[in-house]
Amino acid sequence: MVETKIPRATAKRLPLYYRYLNTLHDDGKTRVSSTELADAIHVDSATIRRDFSYFGALGKRGYGYDVDNLMEFFKNILHQDRLTNVALVGVGNLGHALLNFNFHQDSNIRISAAFDVNPKNINTIQGGVPIYPMSQMVTQLKEQQISVVILTVPSDVAQEVANQVAKAGVKGILNFTSIRLSVPDDIRVHNVDLTNELQTLIYFIDHYDQK
Amino acid sequence: MVETKIPRATAKRLPLYYRYLNTLHDDGKTRVSSTELADAIHVDSATIRRDFSYFGALGKRGYGYDVDNLMEFFKNILHQDRLTNVALVGVGNLGHALLNFNFHQDSNIRISAAFDVNPKNINTIQGGVPIYPMSQMVTQLKEQQISVVILTVPSDVAQEVANQVAKAGVKGILNFTSIRLSVPDDIRVHNVDLTNELQTLIYFIDHYDQK
Repeated sequence: MVETKIPRATAKRLPLYYRYLNTLHDDGKTRVSSTELADAIHVDSATIRRDFSYFGALGKRGYGYDVDNLMEFFKNILHQDRLTNVALVGVGNLGHALLNFNFHQDSNIRISAAFDVNPKNINTIQGGVPIYPMSQMVTQLKEQQISVVILTVPSDVAQEVANQVAKAGVKGILNFTSIRLSVPDDIRVHNVDLTNELQTLIYFIDHYDQK
Repeated sequence: MVETKIPRATAKRLPLYYRYLNTLHDDGKTRVSSTELADAIHVDSATIRRDFSYFGALGKRGYGYDVDNLMEFFKNILHQDRLTNVALVGVGNLGHALLNFNFHQDSNIRISAAFDVNPKNINTIQGGVPIYPMSQMVTQLKEQQISVVILTVPSDVAQEVANQVAKAGVKGILNFTSIRLSVPDDIRVHNVDLTNELQTLIYFIDHYDQK
């Protein structure tokens, strides 16, 4: 697919747009204006129009956007037209919570395998997901052709696990550890650092009165 | 504190800088260059210099940055010089994981109270945190002067709980639900949407070969 490179901030809003379009579709709505979208998802309408402009002429002036067309468009670029299997590595508290977290409910994403070192977890099924020993990780990732891994291992083994994951041909890591991973250039890492999120929120509360 | 308004992207990097400076301090290092910082935390050095420039002259050309001074500076603006108590609302799988998540380990943040509707959880202590019934939420938030709430309730009650939280004088919400909350202008909401994070990561993997 030939496409302009879009900003990361725009990419992060695409799932929001897609989810809300689904709601509109379920409600039987056939068209929507950028102002209505803006009110619903709390993003200003100029930003929405700019985001959409990266993908060409998706709407018509004075008409707005066709809900079904737009929904199909985002479904396609978000890969939601087919199931994506992901794996989770590290079934501690957070890993366990994510196994039971219903990603699937509003997305076409499914955790199809988990890996852990704890004998209590290995060869059990939690949240519908089989948990394999770490020794089988590379083999399973390859066999299941999994390209995305959720990393919820302790920080002190994060880099080592990332190295193995890279060898298995994974293309993306959602990193919940506080370590900044070093990976080959063809692997993308998104960091979800919960301490960082809280500290940033506290910073803004302390320093600004308004949003 | 009089300060320039800094971009959100910069604010999100401040905890990273602070954490790495702590590591340098613990290792007995007294100064650091923006290039060394860049290598360690995987942010390019031009971005680091621009980030720091928002806070005035923190370093000297040809010398780099004084580790202790810089660490103290970030400690102060990140509110890490004193403990911040936060509350968690909704002790399901994710809430339970966050109660046991060691925010405190590398930050001066502590979950001091949790709230839930499940009789099995109410009046128990999990991960060292007392869990109160929802009926006591507003009172406890006020009494403990808690200004930040982590929201891990089911999506269908998220807005209702946010309304109550707002009444209790809370200034910031870390929202893990998939709902876009409507709150008064003096409350700041940061959204951590895990489905969204995965979808965005998959989008980038699908559409770009390189980072």
